[in-house]
Amino acid sequence: MFSSQRMIILAEGRFGPVSSKTANGAIAFMTDRVVAVIDSRMAGKTAQEVLGYGGSIPVVGSLREGLAFRPDALLIGIAPAGGQLPAAWRRFVLEALRGGLHVLSGLHTMLADDPEFAALAASGGLTITDLRRIPQESKVVSRGTWRLRSARTVLTVGTDCKIGKMTTLLAVDAELRRRGRRSAFIGTGQTGILIAGNGVSVDAVVGDYIAGSIEREIDRADRAGAELILVEGQGALTHQGYSSVTLGLMHGTMPDAMILNHQPTRLSDDYGFPLPDLRRTVRLHEEVIGIFRPTKVVGIGLNSVGLTDAESRDAARRIEDETGLPAIDAFRFGAGPLVNALESYLASAPRVSYTGPLPSPSGPWDRGVHAGKESA
Amino acid sequence: MFSSQRMIILAEGRFGPVSSKTANGAIAFMTDRVVAVIDSRMAGKTAQEVLGYGGSIPVVGSLREGLAFRPDALLIGIAPAGGQLPAAWRRFVLEALRGGLHVLSGLHTMLADDPEFAALAASGGLTITDLRRIPQESKVVSRGTWRLRSARTVLTVGTDCKIGKMTTLLAVDAELRRRGRRSAFIGTGQTGILIAGNGVSVDAVVGDYIAGSIEREIDRADRAGAELILVEGQGALTHQGYSSVTLGLMHGTMPDAMILNHQPTRLSDDYGFPLPDLRRTVRLHEEVIGIFRPTKVVGIGLNSVGLTDAESRDAARRIEDETGLPAIDAFRFGAGPLVNALESYLASAPRVSYTGPLPSPSGPWDRGVHAGKESA
Repeated sequence: MFSSQRMIILAEGRFGPVSSKTANGAIAFMTDRVVAVIDSRMAGKTAQEVLGYGGSIPVVGSLREGLAFRPDALLIGIAPAGGQLPAAWRRFVLEALRGGLHVLSGLHTMLADDPEFAALAASGGLTITDLRRIPQESKVVSRGTWRLRSARTVLTVGTDCKIGKMTTLLAVDAELRRRGRRSAFIGTGQTGILIAGNGVSVDAVVGDYIAGSIEREIDRADRAGAELILVEGQGALTHQGYSSVTLGLMHGTMPDAMILNHQPTRLSDDYGFPLPDLRRTVRLHEEVIGIFRPTKVVGIGLNSVGLTDAESRDAARRIEDETGLPAIDAFRFGAGPLVNALESYLASAPRVSYTGPLPSPSGPWDRGVHAGKESA
Repeated sequence: MFSSQRMIILAEGRFGPVSSKTANGAIAFMTDRVVAVIDSRMAGKTAQEVLGYGGSIPVVGSLREGLAFRPDALLIGIAPAGGQLPAAWRRFVLEALRGGLHVLSGLHTMLADDPEFAALAASGGLTITDLRRIPQESKVVSRGTWRLRSARTVLTVGTDCKIGKMTTLLAVDAELRRRGRRSAFIGTGQTGILIAGNGVSVDAVVGDYIAGSIEREIDRADRAGAELILVEGQGALTHQGYSSVTLGLMHGTMPDAMILNHQPTRLSDDYGFPLPDLRRTVRLHEEVIGIFRPTKVVGIGLNSVGLTDAESRDAARRIEDETGLPAIDAFRFGAGPLVNALESYLASAPRVSYTGPLPSPSGPWDRGVHAGKESA
């Protein structure tokens, strides 16, 4: 299982605060599992010196040098434009497999489908994990199984994309576990999947299967006995480019509760639009789900990048006054207030109960109700 | 160009009101271009006898027999489970290409990629049109180009999926043309694309590219000088399985106006939920777009399958009273009232004006705003 592997991270030529994001996610959230980072430009430094976090994780000049730190796996920690594997990185993968390392990759290119890599892995008893691979079983239309679940579900949403939905939810997960709750975090992007050891890379799924693909992951966690299932959000309901994925996650999760993420210092989105009004955004998310079931945005997760701790606390207070909801940078200060609000809401929130039939896995997706209508 | 081809339709073993939907769409909306239907079980009947519409279009027992009606193209008019090409239908395609016919297909299997078909087509100077093919250029994130368009845009939405969005919009298109307006219909499903001769099969697109793929089609129609661009809706914002595609179309179109489609006799959706309240649904659609720009649901398109004309008129009156919006089955009675409401609204609706920059085609999709965040 890749969630226990000790990783050396390939970030050759790109290790830095902005240019090596999969690497940085692993270093921030799986610090104990990262043994070294490869970037010959930075050899001799530590992750802390390059990123400002990550402690004493060393940067090394080559894979060979990194083997001294006894990794089990190579993680491709950088993403080239287009997500393909550059020829220059190919030798790192070959060298890793020949050196007895498993390989983890979030690239669009499926490394496990490469005949040379696959043969080397097979002969060495090694795994190649493509974090973005969508299994055939995930290519299904949602059946609405949320009505049958025992667990409660929480989804992070945001006023914009890339605003801290994963980060907040990981802090919520940590706090719930600290309180002895059986929570399960489901990743929906490559870093979240890497950290959680499970999930589905929803941005690689065609639209009609987004809700179905996350539903399947949630149902699996429900059957495994989770009390609270935490679903990493993607995109934003109000992001013109990425809203499809967000709404699919919302409907596939049909969450008992949501946590809205926001960055006080971000003035506009990818399109130059000011981020939407917080209260309006809360209402919109509650209405989209409220058509089907009771739900609530229980708190605001803040991304206070660029703010001091005091400034972050001030921003949180202003947002609490504006929205009437608890607000905190959970990455810096912990998710206590968010989890308090969540537990308090769920304690009295109605459970959905349903005993009727669900659509069969193959649909009645095709109703034929009108001449000329066409099903997918 | 396939939009002028005279078609013979393959519906072998399946021609009927429910089981041959691509065929039926072609017969209903391109009656003059359909020369015959192949189904050996029904040979000698007419489309009218089998479907209740389609007039004297003959059903024939074989492709060979159908050649007497001088088709230019074979349309695969039925969709097997899974969308693949059954071996038994392969001979029809081969026979068509050998007989000098172009081939049109809405199957998931890309017929043009089949080496035997491709070679036959090339040697005969014939085209194979896969209606569901997504060109590489359509795999892009939305840039928000709606702010630069000259044309006004109209999107059909619905209280459920497969409820008449294409049908209503085709009637609106016909009425606008009758009034001398330069309207352009953009198909988003295989039948709509077949009818319009252009469009993009959005259900085959990954979530992040849905808005971008329709944006590209709209921009093309805008550059070609359309006054009104009509975008065929898909799914429903309140359909748990198919809402992703709907929201992607909404944000990629960012419509000046919408027409909400509804079926008064439909009691519940695929999941057993009652269809949502009409006024609530109107408000939700207006709010989702209203965050970005002024818009309005200008009317309700009815699918009155199963109702007499008098019952349909009665249902329309009740819905007009409930919503304050014009309502009509535009397939039966024409789209006059819907187009009146649309033109009246657009005459005074503010135009969006924008002179700022757009994101470059390659993004700033990757902002790197928080440690551990990961872009697509």
